[in-house]
Amino acid sequence: MQAMFEFMANCGCSPGRGAYDCALHAARQVYAARCTCRDFFGAADPACAVFVPGATFGLNAALQGLLLPGDHVLVSSLEHNAVMRPLQALEKQRGIEVSVVEESPVDAVGVRSWEEAMRPNTRMIAASHASNVIGICRDLSVLGDLAVEHGLWFVVDAAQTAGLYDINVSTVHIDALAFSGHKALMGPPGIGGLIVSPRAGTAMAPLVYGGTGSQSETESQPEFLPDRLESGTMNTPGIVGLAAGIDYVSAISPTRIRQHIHSLSHRFIAGVEQIPGIVSIQSCLTPTAVVSVVPQVLGPSELAYELDAQYGVMVRSGLHCAPAAHRFLGTFPAGTVRFSFGWFNTDSDVDYTLEALAALASSLPGE
Amino acid sequence: MQAMFEFMANCGCSPGRGAYDCALHAARQVYAARCTCRDFFGAADPACAVFVPGATFGLNAALQGLLLPGDHVLVSSLEHNAVMRPLQALEKQRGIEVSVVEESPVDAVGVRSWEEAMRPNTRMIAASHASNVIGICRDLSVLGDLAVEHGLWFVVDAAQTAGLYDINVSTVHIDALAFSGHKALMGPPGIGGLIVSPRAGTAMAPLVYGGTGSQSETESQPEFLPDRLESGTMNTPGIVGLAAGIDYVSAISPTRIRQHIHSLSHRFIAGVEQIPGIVSIQSCLTPTAVVSVVPQVLGPSELAYELDAQYGVMVRSGLHCAPAAHRFLGTFPAGTVRFSFGWFNTDSDVDYTLEALAALASSLPGE
Repeated sequence: MQAMFEFMANCGCSPGRGAYDCALHAARQVYAARCTCRDFFGAADPACAVFVPGATFGLNAALQGLLLPGDHVLVSSLEHNAVMRPLQALEKQRGIEVSVVEESPVDAVGVRSWEEAMRPNTRMIAASHASNVIGICRDLSVLGDLAVEHGLWFVVDAAQTAGLYDINVSTVHIDALAFSGHKALMGPPGIGGLIVSPRAGTAMAPLVYGGTGSQSETESQPEFLPDRLESGTMNTPGIVGLAAGIDYVSAISPTRIRQHIHSLSHRFIAGVEQIPGIVSIQSCLTPTAVVSVVPQVLGPSELAYELDAQYGVMVRSGLHCAPAAHRFLGTFPAGTVRFSFGWFNTDSDVDYTLEALAALASSLPGE
Repeated sequence: MQAMFEFMANCGCSPGRGAYDCALHAARQVYAARCTCRDFFGAADPACAVFVPGATFGLNAALQGLLLPGDHVLVSSLEHNAVMRPLQALEKQRGIEVSVVEESPVDAVGVRSWEEAMRPNTRMIAASHASNVIGICRDLSVLGDLAVEHGLWFVVDAAQTAGLYDINVSTVHIDALAFSGHKALMGPPGIGGLIVSPRAGTAMAPLVYGGTGSQSETESQPEFLPDRLESGTMNTPGIVGLAAGIDYVSAISPTRIRQHIHSLSHRFIAGVEQIPGIVSIQSCLTPTAVVSVVPQVLGPSELAYELDAQYGVMVRSGLHCAPAAHRFLGTFPAGTVRFSFGWFNTDSDVDYTLEALAALASSLPGE
C-alpha cells in the first residue's frame, strides 16, 4: 500500500507514453518490477515477465493465444474455472479437445495417466501448481519434462503457490506461468503476471490489441515482448505494489513462509480430526495455504456464516470456482468450507478457529 | 488515492468469493461503484456497467466480442490503435472488413460519408468520441441514430471525453462505451469501464473466461451481466478509486470542468498562433483537453525534451498510438507535440508554457 501510494502521489505517470522525466521514472519503476519478477520466477529475460490483471487473464492469454483449431489439451482433475471455462469456450469456438487426467489425490505426480491420455494432436499440458480447494501441490518438473519430451506447451496456474514455493520457469520448462498479485505475493488485487518462455511469448496471439507506446507508426501489434502482450495504459500502482510484495516475500524467503503456513495447516488438520461432525478432506496430504473441511450436519455456507458472525473467522464456502475439482473429490455440489492460512496467522489463530469449530459442531441440532 | 488506501487498509477483500461481512462490504463498494457509473453514463442498469482494466480492454471486448466472420465495420479516420489494432487482427483472424470513413476534420459530424460507406454486411460503427491527437469531438447522437436506423452496433471510445462531456448511452443509443479511469475521470491507472446496452452485453462473447464467484457449479461462463464479462479477482482498489474520481467530477460537473479546459485550450491555441515556428493544427476547432502543435524547425521529440528539461512542461510527442489519425491529418510520420490541459491547470500555466515555447522557438538554429 505504501509503495502504491508513494508512486501515485509522487509520479502517477504512464511509462512509454512520453519522454519527460516523470514518464521515464514510471518506466524505470515498471522495468524494475519486471526484473523483480524475472529474478523471482527464473524468467529468461525481463521482457518475458508480462503484467496482466491477474491469473485468470494470464491463463486466458496463454490458452486462447496458444491453442489452435483441432489441438488437444490435457488438464488435471483439480483445475479452477480460470482454466476450465476458457477451455470450454475454445471447444465450442475452435473445436479444440480437452482431456481431464484422472489422478489420485494422494499421487498427483503420477506420470503414467498423463502419458496414457496423450493423442497425436496433443499440444498442451495445463495444470495448476496447487489446488485452490485442497491445497495439494504437484511436482511441476515431472510435467515439465513430459512436455519437453512430447513437444507440448506447458501452462501452469500458480495462483495458489507463487510466493510459497520457489518456481523456476526455466529449469522446470514452463511456457506460461500465470499468477495473481494478491495472494501469497502480498500485492494488491487487480494485478498479476504471466511469465512466458521466449518461444511461447512470441508464438502467443495477443488477447488484447492496442496502443503500446511502441511502433506507433503501424496498426499491427508489435511482435516483440512484452509489448506484444501488454496493450493499453498499465496498472502502474498495481505493478509497483506487486513488486513491493515480492520484495517483502523475498526478504523473508518463500521457504520460510511456506514452513510457517504448513505448520499452521497441519496444526489445523490435526485439530479438526478431533472434532466430531467436521471432516477434513485432506489429512494425509501436504497442504499449501488452503485446507477444506466438510461439516456433516449443517451446510458449508451455514458453517461459514456462523464462523464469521459468531467468531469473526472469515472463510469461503461452496465450490470455490472449481466444480471439476469438487466433482473429483466427491464434494459436489455442496462443496466445502475452505480455510486459508497466511504469514501473519499464528498458532493461536488456529487454536481459536478450532475452538470455534468445536463449539459450533457441538451446538448442532441433534447433537 | 485516499479512497483506495482506505479500502485496502480497512477491507481489501474480494466481492463474491465469500459471504463474511468483510466480503459483503467489498461487494457493496463494487455495487455502489457500478451504480455511480450507471448514473454517470445513463446505463440501463448497474449490471450494464462492466469494470475492465481500461479503455483498450473495453474496446477489445466490444470489437472481438461482437464482430462475427464476414462482418463489415465502419471507423472514423481519427481512431486510436486501441480500435485499429484489434480490427486489423480481426481482419486476419475472422475475415472481417474495415472501412475508414474519411471525414473533414472541421465537420466530423457529417453523416453522408458514413452512409455512403455502408455495405450489406455492415454490422458496426466504431468511433472515438474525441480524437486523442487533436481533441476534436463528434456529436455521438448523429452516429447513434444512424446505427439504430441501419441496425448496427455502435461502439464508442470515450477515453478522451468521459468526465468532460455528459454522455448518456441510452439516449444516444450506444451499445458499448469504453473509458479509462485515469484521464478526465480522475481515477487511477489500470481501471476503466465498458458500459453496454443490455442487448450488446448479452450478445458479446467474453474476452476472458473464468471464475466469477457465481454459478460455480458449471464450467460454462454465466450468461448474465456483469459476471459474463468480469472473470477473475477484481481490481477493487482501482474500482473504489474510479468511483471516488467520478464522484469528484460529478460534484464539480463535467460541464464546468470542460468550460475551464476549453478556456485553457483556446488561450493556448491563440497564443501559439503568435509564435513564429510553431504551428497549431487545430485553430478553428473545439478542442477537448488535448491540443497538438507542429514545430517547424526542430522535431517534435526534441521540442518535447527541451520543454521538460528546461521548463518542466511534460508533453507527449510523436504519433500518440494513432497512426491513422496522423496520416489523415498529414502529420505522419513525425507526429506532433501534444499538450493536455486539466482541471487543476490555470491560465498562468498556459502563459508559462507559451513563454517556454516562444523562447525555444526563438533559440532555434538559424533563427
